[in-house]
Amino acid sequence: MADSELSSALREGLIRAVGPERLLTGAAQREAYAWDNSGRRFLPWAVALPESREQVAGVLRVCHEAGVPVVPRGAGTGCVGGGLAVQGGVILSTQRLNRIVAIEPGDRLAVVEPGVVNGVLRERLAAHGLFWPPDPSSARSCTIGGNLAMCSAGPNAVRYGVTRHWVLGLEVLLADGSPMRVGGYTTKGVVGYDLTQLLIGSEGTLAVLVEAILKLAPLPEARRTLRATFRDMESAARAVAGVMGRGEPPSALEFLDPASLELLRGNGGGVGHPEGQALLLVEVEGDAVEVDRKACALRERLLAFDPLEAVVAGDEAESKRIWSARYALSPTLTRIAPRRINEDVVVPVTRLAELVAGLQRIARATEVPIVSFGHAGNGNIHVNLLTDPADPARQVRAAQALEQVFDLVLQLNGTLSGEHGVGIMKRDFIPRELDPRSLVLQQAIKGIFDPRGILNPGKIFPMS
Amino acid sequence: MADSELSSALREGLIRAVGPERLLTGAAQREAYAWDNSGRRFLPWAVALPESREQVAGVLRVCHEAGVPVVPRGAGTGCVGGGLAVQGGVILSTQRLNRIVAIEPGDRLAVVEPGVVNGVLRERLAAHGLFWPPDPSSARSCTIGGNLAMCSAGPNAVRYGVTRHWVLGLEVLLADGSPMRVGGYTTKGVVGYDLTQLLIGSEGTLAVLVEAILKLAPLPEARRTLRATFRDMESAARAVAGVMGRGEPPSALEFLDPASLELLRGNGGGVGHPEGQALLLVEVEGDAVEVDRKACALRERLLAFDPLEAVVAGDEAESKRIWSARYALSPTLTRIAPRRINEDVVVPVTRLAELVAGLQRIARATEVPIVSFGHAGNGNIHVNLLTDPADPARQVRAAQALEQVFDLVLQLNGTLSGEHGVGIMKRDFIPRELDPRSLVLQQAIKGIFDPRGILNPGKIFPMS
Repeated sequence: MADSELSSALREGLIRAVGPERLLTGAAQREAYAWDNSGRRFLPWAVALPESREQVAGVLRVCHEAGVPVVPRGAGTGCVGGGLAVQGGVILSTQRLNRIVAIEPGDRLAVVEPGVVNGVLRERLAAHGLFWPPDPSSARSCTIGGNLAMCSAGPNAVRYGVTRHWVLGLEVLLADGSPMRVGGYTTKGVVGYDLTQLLIGSEGTLAVLVEAILKLAPLPEARRTLRATFRDMESAARAVAGVMGRGEPPSALEFLDPASLELLRGNGGGVGHPEGQALLLVEVEGDAVEVDRKACALRERLLAFDPLEAVVAGDEAESKRIWSARYALSPTLTRIAPRRINEDVVVPVTRLAELVAGLQRIARATEVPIVSFGHAGNGNIHVNLLTDPADPARQVRAAQALEQVFDLVLQLNGTLSGEHGVGIMKRDFIPRELDPRSLVLQQAIKGIFDPRGILNPGKIFPMS
Repeated sequence: MADSELSSALREGLIRAVGPERLLTGAAQREAYAWDNSGRRFLPWAVALPESREQVAGVLRVCHEAGVPVVPRGAGTGCVGGGLAVQGGVILSTQRLNRIVAIEPGDRLAVVEPGVVNGVLRERLAAHGLFWPPDPSSARSCTIGGNLAMCSAGPNAVRYGVTRHWVLGLEVLLADGSPMRVGGYTTKGVVGYDLTQLLIGSEGTLAVLVEAILKLAPLPEARRTLRATFRDMESAARAVAGVMGRGEPPSALEFLDPASLELLRGNGGGVGHPEGQALLLVEVEGDAVEVDRKACALRERLLAFDPLEAVVAGDEAESKRIWSARYALSPTLTRIAPRRINEDVVVPVTRLAELVAGLQRIARATEVPIVSFGHAGNGNIHVNLLTDPADPARQVRAAQALEQVFDLVLQLNGTLSGEHGVGIMKRDFIPRELDPRSLVLQQAIKGIFDPRGILNPGKIFPMS
């Protein structure tokens, strides 16, 4: 099926739905939509670029009628193949539905279309002293639609919670193109089952988003960045649990392992004490009067865990330098291991030391280098297995290492994904995590929403 | 069916499930479980008081086999008949499943059984410098199970969000008694559809809770209470939108209307300026160093809206006096109108002035006194229609007034319930609010979870 040609009936139907200038059918055009950050490639039959919800509905009606897969897609920054046409069919890009419909400061809400870029919304809201917290590292290019489909998150989830906490209501189109509103404009509401929450994180398998009502938070006046380096992973992990164990949570609590530090030292440094084997990057926020006091108080708490150093960035430039080391990691890894496996497992914060020790054990046993860093305050660690497509034996060992990582995470009461989602990359692993009864119910829910199975088929659920 | 006797086979099955000492079948015993705060009465056939999840499973298996309704019930403090056996059957009380299984400060989580009383958990957590935010006014007696079933909330939702934001995972028993785990121990997790969120607020119609993993927040060091009285409702409503429009949200932003103030003045006062026609009660929190500064800053912001007075409570005793006026309202209303209709509608904060004006219009037109107060920071107002069972004409007018209130709320982009739920009291009204497609999907989900329809039948969905 994945290699089928676009039938002329389907092509004509899609052209009627969106107009010829918004339907891409050339091989080169389709190629641009065949990839995401998973590194996998699936060429769609066609790409529709609707500019109105009526056009989205038209695409759905045509595909529903024909039983053709529809793959909703934002900016294509996802890591798990969620926006790829793995069973062929039509990519339904929501990038041109990019209006910020309304910003209501008094109600602390914004109404947006799914194609609005996260960072663009952030800029627009700043003028009102507000922001929408979810901050994936792709914020400059990823769209709100993708954020909601995957329930993506970033560093500030440690303070603000995850994407689903910041959505009040949705307008979606169902598989047959008919519209449905769920939730609404209020910060409280308990009328019926919460389909808003069910749809968030459903990876485009239940409905297509056309509008979202987002809950906003006040933009903090000031932020301060701290860096603490530790002589070993265990003391850094204890410091994380200590910081999270009481008091106001920081707005970021990031972690870098020895392999990350080694990479960065080879890459220009900026990672503190030369003997450091683990680094914590902490951000506190507050109003201008209190933020320095908060930063000093947090430094005091870190000192209790015997770091090699713990410094508060003196100014914005120093803060940026500290963060840039963290953000240099992903590109550096991509350079040295373009086909690395990049996971985003989560364990309870108090099990972080066990996770880190276990990862080192697995790396030694399988001889697959593992580089770990990420959102320690949520126990959400990006585990990078450095594979090498030119070395088939290492590829096999990497697959074994990945299995061991997942088993370890589940033993520690963790989860296989904190913010990337399942897509095609983890669908065969989720039966290890999910209660079998839950999996049966989830598939039954899918069947209710999408009886013909046209919405993003092949995602989330294991292929039977 | 509601008047049926308990068959001897069912009685024997239930005794096998929970033991004779945990099954109540006497009329007087059952009477205690025939009521909740809705004022409606439905006598159950029997009341089971299991003390373990195995016993809960046994009750479910027996009732599932026999096709008998099972009504999960916490402390019976609900307002919408959610815990009443409206179609007869067995009340399944979870009050004796009341263990606090674990408190993990480093992970900011607690594991509890559903019968734990909200206020008891609060006391236990305070020793760790943590708390579980949901604070319904019944916190001293209501259970966590009831809080989760109804997604109940209270004043501090304006700062902390609602109950569903503070739950990480659940263990439930399905209709046939089989166990299912959803969610987990981590603050992030995106593997599969979020059934945790679907179950919260489902009013016991999808499954029976036996354990919950709750997310915790740090207990603030200090709080300050402010009271501001205004010469009219409009300026108070504008002040609410002004406070919510920027900056850190207060931890409570409550509102009392002219009728509330009149009642309280006759009742001992404590409501500020004698000419006040609207009162705002605001609470700010923070650490000991910053809380007074925050209170002063908030007072400055309130002064911009020209109140008759705006005072910060000087000490704990004065703060308690201010809050006690707010908490005296419900009992006072119950005394003067025991059968009052107590609604908990919500509108966007910026529409509050329109809601309040509309309510006054409806009260005048129908000659039914309306007293309104509540959680203004969320736009969540308790609208009390003072009915009188001895006056049939007024009862009819009250029913008309209620319809007009609901229509008004929906015109203002609001919702019929912010924290009480639907139960039997609003089930016939929800088609006015919900998209018909959403209602169909919700009923289909109910059918998947509970194909025999034994779990809390007659709740949420309109009777067809």
